[in-house]
Amino acid sequence: MLRFDREAVLSTSAHIDFWFDFISPYGYLASLRVDSVAERHGRKVDWHCMLLGVSVLKVMGLKPLMETPLKRDYVPKEVHRYARRHGIELNRDLFAPPMNPLPVARVFCWLKEHRPTQAKAFAREAMKRYWVDVADLSDGARLSEALQSAGLEAGVLESALKGDGPALLRAEVERATQLGVFGSPFFLVDAEPFFGVDKLEVLDEWLQRGGW
Amino acid sequence: MLRFDREAVLSTSAHIDFWFDFISPYGYLASLRVDSVAERHGRKVDWHCMLLGVSVLKVMGLKPLMETPLKRDYVPKEVHRYARRHGIELNRDLFAPPMNPLPVARVFCWLKEHRPTQAKAFAREAMKRYWVDVADLSDGARLSEALQSAGLEAGVLESALKGDGPALLRAEVERATQLGVFGSPFFLVDAEPFFGVDKLEVLDEWLQRGGW
Repeated sequence: MLRFDREAVLSTSAHIDFWFDFISPYGYLASLRVDSVAERHGRKVDWHCMLLGVSVLKVMGLKPLMETPLKRDYVPKEVHRYARRHGIELNRDLFAPPMNPLPVARVFCWLKEHRPTQAKAFAREAMKRYWVDVADLSDGARLSEALQSAGLEAGVLESALKGDGPALLRAEVERATQLGVFGSPFFLVDAEPFFGVDKLEVLDEWLQRGGW
Repeated sequence: MLRFDREAVLSTSAHIDFWFDFISPYGYLASLRVDSVAERHGRKVDWHCMLLGVSVLKVMGLKPLMETPLKRDYVPKEVHRYARRHGIELNRDLFAPPMNPLPVARVFCWLKEHRPTQAKAFAREAMKRYWVDVADLSDGARLSEALQSAGLEAGVLESALKGDGPALLRAEVERATQLGVFGSPFFLVDAEPFFGVDKLEVLDEWLQRGGW
């Protein structure tokens, strides 16, 4: 009965939107914590994929973090410090070029549309493979393995990439820009925007107090 | 006796370096909290002036925050939300062009060299006048008023601006780049770098635990 009540609360409260790019280390760090923060306040989290290559490079006209002088030296220190603090495994070399995020992002958007209950499990699996196992998910074979581990059948890959995966991703990325989402991670709570992994603690307090 | 012991602790512990630009709203927010965070852990704070116009624009090759699409819409929301949370007054319109920070920065660097015990009081006064009273401190008359309020005599302004203020600021800004300081606020604690006002809570925990 308690379980029923809790689910009723979760289903009637507005969800939190969590935006990330698969190739963003800060997005990965946030992905491992955002659901538990939200859950403490009876909220569910809707995960959304964005592309830093569109938001940061094209719309904002900036450079990738790891190609920005000074910042590129700082980012790995901050990311690994955060990982140590929260017991998060992260083995990928942050100085190495990122994979092409389009295939995995297209698959994720396709799953959200056609297999909504399995999309988040796939995203978690994909991020684990990219950040912990250092797999390149722009490789179809590696992407298939991630799909299988998330309990999805082999045919999904082709359906997603040759079907409406690309169009769904384009729509999501356009929506990100319309919503003012410009980085990863980015959170929207009742229309209030929070940028950056350090905002998880702010968001926790915001939900506790009901804003300020 | 207790007071004496506390001061002994403060003088033997390594200080925390706090870097800021007078025209950075995040630097202003941090300036009102950093000393009390440090004090909780028996640390003193050494304030340093940097110039976003050099670090961000020239060295990093980026644009000012308030000229960056999407980010310029987000920054005022975040800054005012932070100010509300911490009971901080901030009246300046963040969309208005910033003042030229050189005169006030040169005076501050001059004071650090020639009147070290009064430099921080001046910086606080200058930030209050810029961010709360919406004064333009690139105007000599307004800058003189800030100096007087901080207990400094009228002649300081000319001594600083026509003396070694400009050279001292140049040296400090070069040092910022050498240290990897690229934004405002930026904190260095025992060589560990922390960027952004959200790091004050991280820094608090870092000092409490002795790192992680």
